[in-house]
Amino acid sequence: MRSDLGMGKGKLAAQAAHASLSAAEMASGARPSWYEDWKSEGQKKVVLKVASETELEELYKMARRAKLPAARVEDRGLTQVEPGTVTCLGIGPGPDVEIDKITGKLKLL
Amino acid sequence: MRSDLGMGKGKLAAQAAHASLSAAEMASGARPSWYEDWKSEGQKKVVLKVASETELEELYKMARRAKLPAARVEDRGLTQVEPGTVTCLGIGPGPDVEIDKITGKLKLL
Repeated sequence: MRSDLGMGKGKLAAQAAHASLSAAEMASGARPSWYEDWKSEGQKKVVLKVASETELEELYKMARRAKLPAARVEDRGLTQVEPGTVTCLGIGPGPDVEIDKITGKLKLL
Repeated sequence: MRSDLGMGKGKLAAQAAHASLSAAEMASGARPSWYEDWKSEGQKKVVLKVASETELEELYKMARRAKLPAARVEDRGLTQVEPGTVTCLGIGPGPDVEIDKITGKLKLL
């Protein structure tokens, strides 16, 4: 999640849900075994923060290079942010060890 | 979302994502046309608050009686809340008019 946009709690929660659904859908199509494992193991979700769009885009590129499911959320800007703002990024489900290489140093939101 | 549990931003976001995914999965199985319409219309999500578990359970019963997808999230309690705590409820996707009958008076989180 971008922490630099000043999004309120409800906005953050909705954006996280968008990202989670989009990334899960991507995995269910491209990596069904990762998706099924994740579902059967309690659908772990960890919400982390980045300080800028630049940082988010860098993580997105790393995730794509690692062939992990990765979905950016672009907001329509009806509330709180400008139209087209990228608010957050969902990565996974996938192997913990691969995801941790990308997100392991980020702090919890 | 229950606002009485003192959950932090990241916790709220993760719980919202759980609820959203669970309710969307329920709809995709039981009400595929609602699910497809919702997906093609931008997957609207609105995050609202309740003040207690009692209020949440009442909304859950109303949603089930109205045959709407409805998924409660029970937390494993590894962080912030006691194991088994119901943290939030996802309702829909479904017809706006039916959902509004149940959630229309709630305030945004």
